[in-house]
Amino acid sequence: MKDIAINLLEERGVTLEDMAVLVLDLQKKYYDDLTIEECIENLHHVLEKREVQNAILTGIALDKLAEKDMLEEPLLSILKKDEPLYGIDEILALSITNVYGSIGLTNFGYLDKVKPGIIGKLNEDKEKKCNTFIDDLVAAIIAAACARIAHSKKEVL
Amino acid sequence: MKDIAINLLEERGVTLEDMAVLVLDLQKKYYDDLTIEECIENLHHVLEKREVQNAILTGIALDKLAEKDMLEEPLLSILKKDEPLYGIDEILALSITNVYGSIGLTNFGYLDKVKPGIIGKLNEDKEKKCNTFIDDLVAAIIAAACARIAHSKKEVL
Amino acid sequence: MKDIAINLLEERGVTLEDMAVLVLDLQKKYYDDLTIEECIENLHHVLEKREVQNAILTGIALDKLAEKDMLEEPLLSILKKDEPLYGIDEILALSITNVYGSIGLTNFGYLDKVKPGIIGKLNEDKEKKCNTFIDDLVAAIIAAACARIAHSKKEVL
Amino acid sequence: MKDIAINLLEERGVTLEDMAVLVLDLQKKYYDDLTIEECIENLHHVLEKREVQNAILTGIALDKLAEKDMLEEPLLSILKKDEPLYGIDEILALSITNVYGSIGLTNFGYLDKVKPGIIGKLNEDKEKKCNTFIDDLVAAIIAAACARIAHSKKEVL
Repeated sequence: MKDIAINLLEERGVTLEDMAVLVLDLQKKYYDDLTIEECIENLHHVLEKREVQNAILTGIALDKLAEKDMLEEPLLSILKKDEPLYGIDEILALSITNVYGSIGLTNFGYLDKVKPGIIGKLNEDKEKKCNTFIDDLVAAIIAAACARIAHSKKEVL
Repeated sequence: MKDIAINLLEERGVTLEDMAVLVLDLQKKYYDDLTIEECIENLHHVLEKREVQNAILTGIALDKLAEKDMLEEPLLSILKKDEPLYGIDEILALSITNVYGSIGLTNFGYLDKVKPGIIGKLNEDKEKKCNTFIDDLVAAIIAAACARIAHSKKEVL
Repeated sequence: MKDIAINLLEERGVTLEDMAVLVLDLQKKYYDDLTIEECIENLHHVLEKREVQNAILTGIALDKLAEKDMLEEPLLSILKKDEPLYGIDEILALSITNVYGSIGLTNFGYLDKVKPGIIGKLNEDKEKKCNTFIDDLVAAIIAAACARIAHSKKEVL
Repeated sequence: MKDIAINLLEERGVTLEDMAVLVLDLQKKYYDDLTIEECIENLHHVLEKREVQNAILTGIALDKLAEKDMLEEPLLSILKKDEPLYGIDEILALSITNVYGSIGLTNFGYLDKVKPGIIGKLNEDKEKKCNTFIDDLVAAIIAAACARIAHSKKEVL
């Protein structure tokens, strides 16, 4: 399941490295010895969680179905326009950030608003593709990895 | 949007009356003058909320796509078997109960476990149909209507 | 922190065994070789989670402060009466069930409604003590242990 | 109850105007005719919700009790240090943003990270006061008002 989730993300243009860069950006101010390899390792742990895999499988399935016009109206138009009041994309994302507790919420909201790196790229590609779910999923995976790092660094101290 | 949501529920075998019966069952011990008409009116208010409509549209779309084998594996098998660890059905339901605050959680959980009335019927039909999302959505709509009644009776006092 | 949380629960009249009995009741229909020892072990894992410890510490602190009249009005009366529209008790409980994903929601709601075993006892004691938070916390800890068992049994298969 | 909540916020140094300024900052790019009066009116609607009032009453009570050393350890030190892994402050905030659906999450996370205006001020005051809950509560109230504006502008169109 984890490999399937990683492959789906890559098929939609998102690599572990893209996400690791943003994890490092967000966390290096707190842990100055944090490496990109550790960020990738933490992303792997996040992606091993079944809730995370299920959210990825479901959200990307909906993005792909919308792209192929295989959904009924009005859901099809809502997803194609990334209608701001839809909210189900944030709900799926929340099920990812929750895996390491509520401390992931802040980073998720920040990433979703500021749209750095790969998240901005997914957003720009919305003219050609349906990226309604994937940008929130990616922000949530990154936020969960940050929360996992915060928890694990604390445990060690 | 509200009419579309009600039609989708009916298309899947769920009427407002089916849900109102369970709302009345759960709430009549607290408000002995509560009528089935008031329960239907409260269900209408719940179904006017955009978050509720979006959860219904999305969940029922996934049930129907699974029924027609129009999803990729492994998501298709997860939905067709109503895999207990899936959890995205509960997440969508939670976005419905949240609309009237956390007091809807208890009734949602109870309905989802005991499966009275229409919820039990949806569960029995799982052999023929994919009802993975709809049973949780219906339990959540009923729980939200109960929460709305509790809030409104309180305000009046 | 885990020992402090367990001691706080015991101080308020809740033992690991009280909770394990309800975990076993809920899960034995799915896993007929499940033992009370395994249930206790799973409760220990739940109680090791920092989110769970923080919810316990905070909720029990509020129950105890209300009991000693050390809160301002109107919060004091809301907690002493276990006002049904309060909802913050369910919110803290949700942060516990979330630790193993949304599948814990159903058992939490069921326990909170039906009030078997120790949960019923906590509820009866409300005349003498302020048990506004603890009954929801205990229901959530039990539901989280059930969710953990479901996840771990699945992984083994 | 609403007046009590507003008074508690003011007692802790937060006025409706402080919050309205941030609502306007976040929303004026979408609605260029939005006024500060409309922002204040939307904040009033948010503060009428019982879930919001309960979260404010509970969170500020805990901040004040911590300030007066009236909590037991280790909760006292956790709150006084605003321990990053605590997470119950974010959980209470989430119960506020949820009132208008998941679309409030993004603004909440952004405000909590960037700490503009009154939120930054509350954060700076942490050396003298215990502001562990109030900064998250204020960010959540602002995010909920933004979500309410987005919903209401949409309905009118």
